Amino acid sequence: MLRLTPPDYTTISEAKSFIANYGGAEANVLVSLSHLGHDTVFLSRVPDNQLGSSAIMHLKRHGVNTDYILRGSSNLGMYFVETGFGGRPSKVLYNRAHSAITRIGEDDLDYDEIFSNAEWFHMSGITLALHERVRAVAFKCLEACRKYGVKVSFDFNYRSKLWTIEEAKPYFQKVIEYVDVLFANFFDINTMLEIQSDPLLETNEEKRNYVAKKLMEKTNVQYVFGTDRIVHTATDNSLSSYCIRKDGSVFKEGPIRFSIYDRIGGGDAFSSGIIHGLLKDFDHPKFALKFGLATSVLKHTLYGDASVMSEDEVLEFIKTNGNAAVQR
Amino acid sequence: MLRLTPPDYTTISEAKSFIANYGGAEANVLVSLSHLGHDTVFLSRVPDNQLGSSAIMHLKRHGVNTDYILRGSSNLGMYFVETGFGGRPSKVLYNRAHSAITRIGEDDLDYDEIFSNAEWFHMSGITLALHERVRAVAFKCLEACRKYGVKVSFDFNYRSKLWTIEEAKPYFQKVIEYVDVLFANFFDINTMLEIQSDPLLETNEEKRNYVAKKLMEKTNVQYVFGTDRIVHTATDNSLSSYCIRKDGSVFKEGPIRFSIYDRIGGGDAFSSGIIHGLLKDFDHPKFALKFGLATSVLKHTLYGDASVMSEDEVLEFIKTNGNAAVQR
Amino acid sequence: MLRLTPPDYTTISEAKSFIANYGGAEANVLVSLSHLGHDTVFLSRVPDNQLGSSAIMHLKRHGVNTDYILRGSSNLGMYFVETGFGGRPSKVLYNRAHSAITRIGEDDLDYDEIFSNAEWFHMSGITLALHERVRAVAFKCLEACRKYGVKVSFDFNYRSKLWTIEEAKPYFQKVIEYVDVLFANFFDINTMLEIQSDPLLETNEEKRNYVAKKLMEKTNVQYVFGTDRIVHTATDNSLSSYCIRKDGSVFKEGPIRFSIYDRIGGGDAFSSGIIHGLLKDFDHPKFALKFGLATSVLKHTLYGDASVMSEDEVLEFIKTNGNAAVQR
Amino acid sequence: MLRLTPPDYTTISEAKSFIANYGGAEANVLVSLSHLGHDTVFLSRVPDNQLGSSAIMHLKRHGVNTDYILRGSSNLGMYFVETGFGGRPSKVLYNRAHSAITRIGEDDLDYDEIFSNAEWFHMSGITLALHERVRAVAFKCLEACRKYGVKVSFDFNYRSKLWTIEEAKPYFQKVIEYVDVLFANFFDINTMLEIQSDPLLETNEEKRNYVAKKLMEKTNVQYVFGTDRIVHTATDNSLSSYCIRKDGSVFKEGPIRFSIYDRIGGGDAFSSGIIHGLLKDFDHPKFALKFGLATSVLKHTLYGDASVMSEDEVLEFIKTNGNAAVQR
Amino acid sequence: MLRLTPPDYTTISEAKSFIANYGGAEANVLVSLSHLGHDTVFLSRVPDNQLGSSAIMHLKRHGVNTDYILRGSSNLGMYFVETGFGGRPSKVLYNRAHSAITRIGEDDLDYDEIFSNAEWFHMSGITLALHERVRAVAFKCLEACRKYGVKVSFDFNYRSKLWTIEEAKPYFQKVIEYVDVLFANFFDINTMLEIQSDPLLETNEEKRNYVAKKLMEKTNVQYVFGTDRIVHTATDNSLSSYCIRKDGSVFKEGPIRFSIYDRIGGGDAFSSGIIHGLLKDFDHPKFALKFGLATSVLKHTLYGDASVMSEDEVLEFIKTNGNAAVQR
Amino acid sequence: MLRLTPPDYTTISEAKSFIANYGGAEANVLVSLSHLGHDTVFLSRVPDNQLGSSAIMHLKRHGVNTDYILRGSSNLGMYFVETGFGGRPSKVLYNRAHSAITRIGEDDLDYDEIFSNAEWFHMSGITLALHERVRAVAFKCLEACRKYGVKVSFDFNYRSKLWTIEEAKPYFQKVIEYVDVLFANFFDINTMLEIQSDPLLETNEEKRNYVAKKLMEKTNVQYVFGTDRIVHTATDNSLSSYCIRKDGSVFKEGPIRFSIYDRIGGGDAFSSGIIHGLLKDFDHPKFALKFGLATSVLKHTLYGDASVMSEDEVLEFIKTNGNAAVQR
Repeated sequence: MLRLTPPDYTTISEAKSFIANYGGAEANVLVSLSHLGHDTVFLSRVPDNQLGSSAIMHLKRHGVNTDYILRGSSNLGMYFVETGFGGRPSKVLYNRAHSAITRIGEDDLDYDEIFSNAEWFHMSGITLALHERVRAVAFKCLEACRKYGVKVSFDFNYRSKLWTIEEAKPYFQKVIEYVDVLFANFFDINTMLEIQSDPLLETNEEKRNYVAKKLMEKTNVQYVFGTDRIVHTATDNSLSSYCIRKDGSVFKEGPIRFSIYDRIGGGDAFSSGIIHGLLKDFDHPKFALKFGLATSVLKHTLYGDASVMSEDEVLEFIKTNGNAAVQR
Repeated sequence: MLRLTPPDYTTISEAKSFIANYGGAEANVLVSLSHLGHDTVFLSRVPDNQLGSSAIMHLKRHGVNTDYILRGSSNLGMYFVETGFGGRPSKVLYNRAHSAITRIGEDDLDYDEIFSNAEWFHMSGITLALHERVRAVAFKCLEACRKYGVKVSFDFNYRSKLWTIEEAKPYFQKVIEYVDVLFANFFDINTMLEIQSDPLLETNEEKRNYVAKKLMEKTNVQYVFGTDRIVHTATDNSLSSYCIRKDGSVFKEGPIRFSIYDRIGGGDAFSSGIIHGLLKDFDHPKFALKFGLATSVLKHTLYGDASVMSEDEVLEFIKTNGNAAVQR
Repeated sequence: MLRLTPPDYTTISEAKSFIANYGGAEANVLVSLSHLGHDTVFLSRVPDNQLGSSAIMHLKRHGVNTDYILRGSSNLGMYFVETGFGGRPSKVLYNRAHSAITRIGEDDLDYDEIFSNAEWFHMSGITLALHERVRAVAFKCLEACRKYGVKVSFDFNYRSKLWTIEEAKPYFQKVIEYVDVLFANFFDINTMLEIQSDPLLETNEEKRNYVAKKLMEKTNVQYVFGTDRIVHTATDNSLSSYCIRKDGSVFKEGPIRFSIYDRIGGGDAFSSGIIHGLLKDFDHPKFALKFGLATSVLKHTLYGDASVMSEDEVLEFIKTNGNAAVQR
Repeated sequence: MLRLTPPDYTTISEAKSFIANYGGAEANVLVSLSHLGHDTVFLSRVPDNQLGSSAIMHLKRHGVNTDYILRGSSNLGMYFVETGFGGRPSKVLYNRAHSAITRIGEDDLDYDEIFSNAEWFHMSGITLALHERVRAVAFKCLEACRKYGVKVSFDFNYRSKLWTIEEAKPYFQKVIEYVDVLFANFFDINTMLEIQSDPLLETNEEKRNYVAKKLMEKTNVQYVFGTDRIVHTATDNSLSSYCIRKDGSVFKEGPIRFSIYDRIGGGDAFSSGIIHGLLKDFDHPKFALKFGLATSVLKHTLYGDASVMSEDEVLEFIKTNGNAAVQR
Repeated sequence: MLRLTPPDYTTISEAKSFIANYGGAEANVLVSLSHLGHDTVFLSRVPDNQLGSSAIMHLKRHGVNTDYILRGSSNLGMYFVETGFGGRPSKVLYNRAHSAITRIGEDDLDYDEIFSNAEWFHMSGITLALHERVRAVAFKCLEACRKYGVKVSFDFNYRSKLWTIEEAKPYFQKVIEYVDVLFANFFDINTMLEIQSDPLLETNEEKRNYVAKKLMEKTNVQYVFGTDRIVHTATDNSLSSYCIRKDGSVFKEGPIRFSIYDRIGGGDAFSSGIIHGLLKDFDHPKFALKFGLATSVLKHTLYGDASVMSEDEVLEFIKTNGNAAVQR
Repeated sequence: MLRLTPPDYTTISEAKSFIANYGGAEANVLVSLSHLGHDTVFLSRVPDNQLGSSAIMHLKRHGVNTDYILRGSSNLGMYFVETGFGGRPSKVLYNRAHSAITRIGEDDLDYDEIFSNAEWFHMSGITLALHERVRAVAFKCLEACRKYGVKVSFDFNYRSKLWTIEEAKPYFQKVIEYVDVLFANFFDINTMLEIQSDPLLETNEEKRNYVAKKLMEKTNVQYVFGTDRIVHTATDNSLSSYCIRKDGSVFKEGPIRFSIYDRIGGGDAFSSGIIHGLLKDFDHPKFALKFGLATSVLKHTLYGDASVMSEDEVLEFIKTNGNAAVQR
């Protein structure tokens, strides 16, 4: 998607120009993973015009393999971001109906070629919301992952502007059967997957741990990851991260309080950091949790939807607790 | 519509930012007429969000009355303009499907209130191409013009990307019954209105004069106006203007050769200048023809879709033959 | 007035360019009220050149009626704003002597036409400082308000660079006879209006309440409003608001601590919020006080002299205590 | 003076920002002479604020000695330049009334210290127009030149917006008694200095040569220099230069046709080039005439009021006839 | 190399900022070929820091394979480009001594892997000038081309600032033994390769054809290509292209006169167009010659060192003679 | 040196443009001192091209005498600054090898002329690291200071990227013999000058005071100054300053916590403030310490390597504890 952002904290209404960059949940995860040293492949469909080419060139620039991106139709998804400041919130305005990806066909991809050598597949719930044709392709991908033993991570990202809870539920419940690593909060598991909580539990954290554990008992999900965010102001947040392992162990990191330069893509950066950590050591999530949180915090200091931090830069942040002395 | 233009002759693919401004055929004519000293009212429907508000604020800024603009839906029409340079052409990329105006309803406007005191109504053929609902409103407007004796001008602006000749024909032929002043070339009259030319005629000019005269004989059209453009390069054009009066008299101005800073809206500026001239003296089109051509040439020297020249500035251009000595 | 601001916290001396926007105490209040949904009319006089036109177009863009703005003379008032950062203060450099408004004539306005249907009239003390001719017009306006029962609000805004206390006093004392709602601090009431405080009172707050009450006992003033600002740094302030009602009741809101993107116009935004609140319910100032404070705080997050926040945006700020989570 | 210019050929009314630079007739001549290798001193008075400091820093940057610039008052002269394009003219909007220099005092300068070691003094007629106090200082300077044998050049630069012909005449006629090198056209000599032409002469060139010769016969003026400009469009001009020597010999250069990037200061650059040439060889003006014309043409290709070309760059232009092949 | 260019025709001395982009003779050819649809591989060595990464990301963005680029050392070659305007020439300032590529080692590349499947190898004479170590690698590459039957094109690009004629000669003469397609002018062949001309020949064209034919008779060179440029001004040039085939046939295209937006890389774009044409049909150079000239002219209308035109865009230019009507 | 900084907190890799300014340790100190009202002279050698001229024009602009700057060679030292944000550190990338100053010759300066009327000489340890030829000139300068009784201040600024501790030691130990005022921390004195600490001392502060006192006992050093910085984040630091007098008295100021707009040059601004204070009163360092700290904090709020604050502005900061209320 093309993101258009007024410069200098201007509102959309007052904007005389927009900064252009390209983003999207899965694309952001891939760009970040690419900068962390991984080979990445993006699956999508973009228009066969200059905007589609520009989106592809953006991905190529960041080392993402674009060989499987389909071309066609004329609309690229777009969204406008009004960057908040202090007590004035950031606002996102979508303009993505009828975009090129909604015209994708189930047989447009060679699933065997793509997935036979893959290691990991990441998907966002936003993708499922776009169109029945997109969902069909998504489940073909998930089947291919099962066939070739590719690990699957999934981030709910439920957006009420795109579909209702009732519309989303059956697809989320179906997806979960394929997932190894889940990015989810209490609402996602309790409401979307209909895992009941224990009425005696009081804090949101206890409830989340409870339903996450219950979910993992009856599915193949190995981990539930997520973050808790406290919004002090639009430019000042705190973030902590949590992980519930299938065995019920709970891990936590943070909170870290930080200044925000660009809020968009913070969650995708977290996912990318977790995946990077788990690819190093799938069984011990402590490092992944720390790395994911650090990657997310650093992403907030960078303009653009995706982290472009190298592994060394994230590790340096962890080592120095983000004290950020000048590096000469 | 929101226009997005890469700065500094950058291509759309390479653009890191876009200059934002608002335009559209009728809106451009109104903005120009407003700067020429007329009271103007815009009829349209824009989204009820920041982009819609911004479009309205643009029109207000230039003195166009926006009281009758309807609000609703979420998509504002957009287009991208890649500004050509020398031998590299400008390119326009539309993204206007499903925009807010296509959801307009026939009864959303109070035609009596709007037209009972109006003097002139201008419409572009692009508007007719947008949707059946838009066409229904357009014909309601034309009926109201007939009822209240409002002069009607119409600019074909046939765009093959929006509809086929066969789709457009019946509407163009129906519109013509209401029109007093027509902006048209030979193709518009010959192909769209099916007025046959005389096979003995040789030059495009002769043919155009012939079909224009024949058209006016059987309709209420009083004038046919238009321009001939020679494109030397993307930034160097020549423009001349012509007028055929109902009585068969032919008037011509130009050609003027000129440098181009922004090509978009040149035709709308011509229309605005003609309307301004005819509002001064409907019967003698010589001044209007000169004024329309000058307004159009000056528009090409200004960034943005619409002319913001005052009457004095256009007259000065005519008086000095555009020699443009510094005014201290 | 034209405001010229170096971008990116540059000093005026080092500036290579200036951002241009238009502002002025009353204009700022009107622009904000217009965005809050009110019909507004601006009274002034601006040069009959491109700068004057640009100032008018700015107001039109924000929905302010400019039909009564007079044109003439060649100097538009200007001021330069050097935006402070951290421990470096913002600086304002005026260049407004001999501006077009100082040439205004007492009979240039049709007071009856303007005020006969008006509901509220707001004036800043800066206006009184400009010239004897301006003062004459101001008092004509106040007389018209009295005649037509228009509510009057007045903001002292005493500026020592424009006139001395001795020069200002008689005009301030004369204005007060017309005022319903006063924006004032202890200095304004005590020094300018010569209302003595009680020597036994200790805090500034007690003294202010005391003199405000005394003032209202002997005039027609219904409310005294104001803010207390703590300047931690140029970009980090706290603001609280107070209201003393004629009956002696005191209302307070805040303090709110907030980051500053543009400091200019914070007081005018407060006034606009108060007026908006009182127009909803003149008798119970609690909502107005909260709304005025929120509008002022939000203005500090926006570039430009005036708030462009809608009523919904201000209410959302109040409801969420300005936590500013992303709105998707 | 502070010059404010909308970027990208925007009109003043539509400008969202202004590029800032400093200029003024004599300052421009000095900056150019400084880049041509001469020691230069500027005499003026600027405000004792950031704008005044910025003007001084501009001159220092270009090597002009600012030790004798006086400080005081608060208004710096300003002007707005709307850059024309093609058939749309450039426009200059002055805002210089009451600027700091008009408060200068006759005894504020130490004329002996300043002029005792000077070689050349250049003045523009604009300076004479500013105020009686400025004129008093100007004539003190001219007296000092006479005392110390400093060569004087004078450029009429009559501006009808600043004073009438009748107001200007006596001062121009008085100045001429001190001048060695005059920059003037037929109007300046014929109307301002009241040197009658021969009614039998037909072309402007013949008349100019005639009155120039007559003028020099009765004054100490050694040379009359000037340029003839043909304005094809705002961005495309031709320029030729002429020189009439006391002995009646006439020299001509050009015309050169050239593209314009910034029109302002073209005349001052010409003066600087002439002065440079005469300082090399006062008696043979051929080189000066060529050099002045080249400096002026090159100035039009540079943004800013003054040429920053070195002597080598101007000579290279002359040598290559301005063919401007890339220099690697 | 990192190219730094002052915006808006500013001189280097006056620049407050520089536009950054990456270029270099062979890189430019590859970027252009990539946009023309070819698989391309770049061989070089860049620093192991952010600047090196940025250079690589630039190439990736444009589809150039960067897998064989070596990393190390800390200096990236840089150059500053001052963009000329009208009679003021563009200037290039190099800062490339001691750049990372000069530390390349002969055995750092796997020549067999790289060249065994290659079709074409292009090299610039600038590369030979950089360092003995670079030359060693260059000849290793040429040997590999001979081994695997890879076609070789070579562009003299002799730069007197980098080495003397005497220094360059032996390497140029050695390179020629490997070349199939040569980009050269009369000076290159006559002086560098010491092919004597016939003293009876008069025009530069006759001489060039003569020495080119003689050269091809005694080497394996199949074609000599080149362009003749007439520099009217820095922003207005004419270009024609020529080709001499081994059999002595001479082909010519142009001249085309055109406006220049960015002069840098015009020659590399020509080379890329020729290579593209010869890859389509090696034996009939007519199309290549036309295509190369069009690609070069279009490159001059684009900012940046390399053409990003697609094959369709170049063909459209040829078809319409570059008339550049708006494409809607 | 030319500093190149990506705008808007962009990383170097992602930068599309760089802001250009000029800096360097001693130059920064001089620019600041010049704005504090002192006559300053810069000694260096810069290339004889546009970049060298631009560096000189920068210094001239800020009032630094550049008459003794030598010209020659072609490389200007450069460095890239990536501005950190929050937890992401600023990064400095040097590109200064082989710069023009390393070609300086011992006899290129007229030491007697330069130093015979000087009052103070300041040098940075970075200068010593550049080249043997530079060191030779440095010691010639120090000798001249001794000869003419010029006070010498020296700032260690040890940079491990430029030379090793072992390489640096002998020069630092030799320099110290000439120094009156030393800017140093514990590491500088203990490691570089090999002054042993007392093993019983515990805090860094105690150790620093101890070795500083010991150093002064055996040398001519009168003062040791320095700052302690706590880096909360890249944009949020605390700074305190210390002074140890020859008599063992210790003075401290701060800490002050502040927001950072541009981190570069904070140390040089401190030095300039100290020198300014000592020039007012050499014997009582309390004022200098306060003034140096304030100058440094203010520098962090300004873009560019050097403070441009006037003495009044620094005093105002001290007086108001940096509360930074708007100055109207």
